[in-house]
Amino acid sequence: MSTPGADQAPEVVDVLVVGFGIAGACAAISAAEAGASVLVVERASHPGGSSALSGGEVYLGGGTSVQEACGFEDSPESMFAFLRAALGPHADEEKLRLYCDDSADHFGWLVDHGVEFRPSLYDAPTWMPPTTDGLMWLGENSWPFDTLATPAPRGHRPPAPFFAGKVLMDALVAAAQAAGVRTLVDTRATSLVAEDGRVAGVRVRQYGSERVLRARRGVVLTTGGFVDNEQMLADHAPALVGHAKVSDGLDDGSGIRMAQDVGAATRRMHAHEVALTFLPALAARGILVNALGQRFVNEDTYPGTVSHAAVSHQPAPYWVIADETCFEEIPDGDLWGVRPTHAAETLAELEQDLGMPAGSLEATVTAYNRFAEQGEDPYFHKASQWLRPLTAPYAAVDVAAGFNPGGRDSAAGGTGVAGFTLGGLHTTPDGSVLSLSGNPVPGLFAAGRTTSGIHGDGYISGTSLGDGSYFGRRAGRAAASGSA
Amino acid sequence: MSTPGADQAPEVVDVLVVGFGIAGACAAISAAEAGASVLVVERASHPGGSSALSGGEVYLGGGTSVQEACGFEDSPESMFAFLRAALGPHADEEKLRLYCDDSADHFGWLVDHGVEFRPSLYDAPTWMPPTTDGLMWLGENSWPFDTLATPAPRGHRPPAPFFAGKVLMDALVAAAQAAGVRTLVDTRATSLVAEDGRVAGVRVRQYGSERVLRARRGVVLTTGGFVDNEQMLADHAPALVGHAKVSDGLDDGSGIRMAQDVGAATRRMHAHEVALTFLPALAARGILVNALGQRFVNEDTYPGTVSHAAVSHQPAPYWVIADETCFEEIPDGDLWGVRPTHAAETLAELEQDLGMPAGSLEATVTAYNRFAEQGEDPYFHKASQWLRPLTAPYAAVDVAAGFNPGGRDSAAGGTGVAGFTLGGLHTTPDGSVLSLSGNPVPGLFAAGRTTSGIHGDGYISGTSLGDGSYFGRRAGRAAASGSA
Repeated sequence: MSTPGADQAPEVVDVLVVGFGIAGACAAISAAEAGASVLVVERASHPGGSSALSGGEVYLGGGTSVQEACGFEDSPESMFAFLRAALGPHADEEKLRLYCDDSADHFGWLVDHGVEFRPSLYDAPTWMPPTTDGLMWLGENSWPFDTLATPAPRGHRPPAPFFAGKVLMDALVAAAQAAGVRTLVDTRATSLVAEDGRVAGVRVRQYGSERVLRARRGVVLTTGGFVDNEQMLADHAPALVGHAKVSDGLDDGSGIRMAQDVGAATRRMHAHEVALTFLPALAARGILVNALGQRFVNEDTYPGTVSHAAVSHQPAPYWVIADETCFEEIPDGDLWGVRPTHAAETLAELEQDLGMPAGSLEATVTAYNRFAEQGEDPYFHKASQWLRPLTAPYAAVDVAAGFNPGGRDSAAGGTGVAGFTLGGLHTTPDGSVLSLSGNPVPGLFAAGRTTSGIHGDGYISGTSLGDGSYFGRRAGRAAASGSA
Repeated sequence: MSTPGADQAPEVVDVLVVGFGIAGACAAISAAEAGASVLVVERASHPGGSSALSGGEVYLGGGTSVQEACGFEDSPESMFAFLRAALGPHADEEKLRLYCDDSADHFGWLVDHGVEFRPSLYDAPTWMPPTTDGLMWLGENSWPFDTLATPAPRGHRPPAPFFAGKVLMDALVAAAQAAGVRTLVDTRATSLVAEDGRVAGVRVRQYGSERVLRARRGVVLTTGGFVDNEQMLADHAPALVGHAKVSDGLDDGSGIRMAQDVGAATRRMHAHEVALTFLPALAARGILVNALGQRFVNEDTYPGTVSHAAVSHQPAPYWVIADETCFEEIPDGDLWGVRPTHAAETLAELEQDLGMPAGSLEATVTAYNRFAEQGEDPYFHKASQWLRPLTAPYAAVDVAAGFNPGGRDSAAGGTGVAGFTLGGLHTTPDGSVLSLSGNPVPGLFAAGRTTSGIHGDGYISGTSLGDGSYFGRRAGRAAASGSA
């Protein structure tokens, strides 16, 4: 990585990108490949951002070579139908249509730029596979999604066990360097320079001194979301207040605020992802219940969907109820040290220990067992492979006490919940930032979690790296063309 | 109402109020009583706004004369504890503290300005009493609120059966007139006039011609929320997309947008109220279940709380399950023509008719009945007066098919849900509109549903008219003093 000092960095380039996560990397590469001179300004001492700390899944489909090698047919239509439901209600259908139609091509672009996805499938519910498999399910084969679209796994991930974001970003940072992109690290953008009704550059602060960097064609903001800004959370996404943050600690909304200062509009600032610290491999084999002993979701669907169903809609605490077989069946290395927090010979004892109404958990397990014996789950349609009557003795796992699905503040606070923001600047599919009156702000582009992307009120892993990389490319290309 | 024509209206006043709902009325009265010359600009042909179409409950407490006459002791502390929970999570504690501390005084102010509240209590769960009683419960005596604060009824309402908003607004409009406030109807504010970093007036359109009205001391925006603006809903409060609107049809966010154009910040734009078309008198006597036959709330709490619990968190459709006694027990005039949409001799038949999993509703009713016999509800703590085992034959009422809790679009669309927005401009407790950088915009004030008020993610009837009137007064007073 070339890191010129303040005195060596170019003062004027064609395209200035602020923030070097996945959206910034892809914007910079695309702008450079379109012939623009490109400089990326990054606040941290190294590129990568929150993207490099993530699981590294990129939501891709429509018939990628990895999907085909693993024996799955896919289409943009199936992908769209799944995401419209999984990211909904109210997914952004305009952006989502483009995202799905171009997804197989976007896969090829990532591969062409050094990202490796191995042609093998990790075939069980998990947050992050402990393997180097390149493909994983993200709920496509679970109810109700399996009734809405032909299931195909679309979680594409670089070859690393668990957190693969670093491998992903290493490849894209190298690709940016190869494309001639220059980088200025330890440099914080403080405001946009607006001239003659156009964004013409960025004021930055580096090692205590201030300067102006100018962009002939466009500035692209890719500074991440605002989960690290407590005031912005209280004002716009209070559901995340008090929970742990999935970020690199620098997602303070700076890009959103800089753009608002020149008249930009925001969209869906309340939208957010939440992850609950439960172990999918255990929950799928047992049941997940709320504080009243009620089930509320099929435990084998994508863990983010389970988390959202719990945290956003059910009374806490949440408990995984399991028996000895559940624990024994979990493959080595997948148990993550999770142990029961409560155990009892009868459900009556267990529900009393858990402070549930008498008979509540017993009724839930009785109904679950009766149908599981027939391989059915008429409530939430968990797949038959995960259905088995639970037998005494019974264990309960307080999901807030246990497993950590990743991110910063790994203990996930006392709530067992960690999350990040999905709302941000209102942009066109080509990344033009819209003003309050709905017109593009000339010279200003944005992508990634600085923007409101394809998401409605739902979230699926891979759609943030996915939309950041795909719309990052579009924004970089548009900025290079000077089209707004 | 004096309605001077365009040629007769003053071109310059001390305080210009935009919008004549309850916030505008109270701002105008307070500004006039502080010695300012005041003009209210209203888009409709008459004052009243959405306030005049509402139920007319004002959330007041802390020891009002009506509470005392009905035998209830109350304190600002109890009121605060209830509202912090009921309007939460994340109620605005700074505004809420003032609102509660001053509530008994605010009651007196309303009475002094011609609003009548009769000293009698309507003592049953309802959206709007069919009587002229001046006091009603809004969930204070129901779980979990009865465990968090000493219960006292705080829904104060003018003497009218059902919709009492017109009576309320007639009084306040007359008070405004008596205070010397002038009014310009059929006049639409199109933008703010900013001069020397200060809001100095409003551009208006009246009968096709445009003009500028100037304010020496301040402009107060009280134009209502944005439930009638489909684009703003999609961008900021998508949960309300597709539902019916509780409004006068003019809540299009114009005040929010005008203020944003001069640099104002917004807050919690996603927050919203929802009302589900169920009959509280029937639900309290029976049970309310989701699409899977699960109970999820105490049916005797405030209907808005029940609605939010259902619409925001549970799988639809929602059903009231009742027996013949439930229907028979409802007082004359309170049944609103609600009839069963399904009936069956057994719960097994009924759950099959309703498309629920076999045994689901039966398990719910069995558990409910077993505890109801002992006067207990360990799940949701419905008060014992509403607990009675349900007996065959059983009836189900599809809540989306039935009763209308009011507002415009009375059929409530096909969803059985109607709502309005709670988010808006970020203001200080004195109504100063804050800029994106957090400083007051000089000369600009706002109140009512144009602003983000005391609400977090919850809602209780009377807190919108309550916060609109109380913070309307504060904004009017601050504008008259020219203090920002």
